[in-house]
Amino acid sequence: MPGTVYLVGSGPGDPDLLTVKARRLLDDADVVLHDKLPGPEILDTIPEAKREDVGKRAGGERTPQSEINARLVELAEAGEDVVRLKGGDPFVFGRGGEEMQYLAEHGVEFEVVPGITSAIAAPAAADIPVTHRDHASSVSFVTGHEDPTKEESAVDWDALAATGGTIVVLMGVGRLPDYTRELLNAGMDAETPVALIEKGTRPGQQVATGTLDTIVDVRDEVGIEPPAVTVIGGVAGLWRDA
Amino acid sequence: MPGTVYLVGSGPGDPDLLTVKARRLLDDADVVLHDKLPGPEILDTIPEAKREDVGKRAGGERTPQSEINARLVELAEAGEDVVRLKGGDPFVFGRGGEEMQYLAEHGVEFEVVPGITSAIAAPAAADIPVTHRDHASSVSFVTGHEDPTKEESAVDWDALAATGGTIVVLMGVGRLPDYTRELLNAGMDAETPVALIEKGTRPGQQVATGTLDTIVDVRDEVGIEPPAVTVIGGVAGLWRDA
Repeated sequence: MPGTVYLVGSGPGDPDLLTVKARRLLDDADVVLHDKLPGPEILDTIPEAKREDVGKRAGGERTPQSEINARLVELAEAGEDVVRLKGGDPFVFGRGGEEMQYLAEHGVEFEVVPGITSAIAAPAAADIPVTHRDHASSVSFVTGHEDPTKEESAVDWDALAATGGTIVVLMGVGRLPDYTRELLNAGMDAETPVALIEKGTRPGQQVATGTLDTIVDVRDEVGIEPPAVTVIGGVAGLWRDA
Repeated sequence: MPGTVYLVGSGPGDPDLLTVKARRLLDDADVVLHDKLPGPEILDTIPEAKREDVGKRAGGERTPQSEINARLVELAEAGEDVVRLKGGDPFVFGRGGEEMQYLAEHGVEFEVVPGITSAIAAPAAADIPVTHRDHASSVSFVTGHEDPTKEESAVDWDALAATGGTIVVLMGVGRLPDYTRELLNAGMDAETPVALIEKGTRPGQQVATGTLDTIVDVRDEVGIEPPAVTVIGGVAGLWRDA
């Protein structure tokens, strides 16, 4: 009997924010394929014997996606029930869609189990709602880590600025100077509130707030490091307004 | 000793997609304030004696938000630990931000516990990833139910169309004709794939797919009813392309 592959979101890092289903699947799985993104607090709850770290290969390079895909198929065909654990939600910048397509193409039974995305949970951990009747009628998620094979940025910062809604940038610490400049060039108010949340929901959580104009300096003064989420829009200034 | 108010997301409706923390808080709470949105599968797991339905008042009208706010404060001041259970995530079109601000203003201790939003989980239940390297570098969430006190739509459909990313409309069955027209007027391709997911993750889940041009007819033929989520963009056609 071939096994099943569960593409499971681990949520933002607090083991309490795993879903009931993710917790059960982690406990029952034969093998858990993961990288570092779920974070140590969650990885430490999984017996070492069934963990397989596919985040890095010897020598420190990243395991190619093709190798991870092939390994998932190999394990399922050997009859193992596999949890492929992804930080946050598997379908929010997690390449879960690509893994799912590969499994479908190879006739492997799979199931997707959503997780809580840090795009919502990290701001929430800082008491910042990504939508609010008085501040934002929409919220958009983008990633600060772009596919390096793309010739130019696929993210249309002008259009995002024009939505008038909250913008949440995942993995957005490093390129903060680039996209804050893009948003200012797009005509966004320099006074627009911005919040950075490092290690949202996890030990060592740190929050820093400023404006589109000041946030790069704030980041450097406070020392915000990856992984962190950037929230841009009125909601990031809710507590200042209050 | 005053109690604490937990603003808890119930997720998309499958009790297995509650977080471990939400499950524990529901089990331990003195009182659970809720409306119908979490769905019967979850509400049935909570002892009737501690449930308080604030979704409707006698006569069938909606309980005013001010009354819910006042009740939360009253219960906490009486020493009760209260779960305010919201469908999906409390901060994604859930008015959780307003409740949080009210609690803070009244000196009530509170904690926000994120839930899995249907904006991600309902598409996932139909194997649709809201982002995908080949199809969408961003995803935007909007609501089809607008604040009726607003003079005109606060949602800028032109800007959303221009992002080039996935658009997810929550509670978007009724106004589907309006916003598909807005997006076509904004220059979006009439062939853009659209998926409707009714009761995502719950018994009776139903999925219908079409294009910006055809989806209103598809909705009527298939008989998609609220609650449903609309996904607009290449990711909604992933399986057709495959």
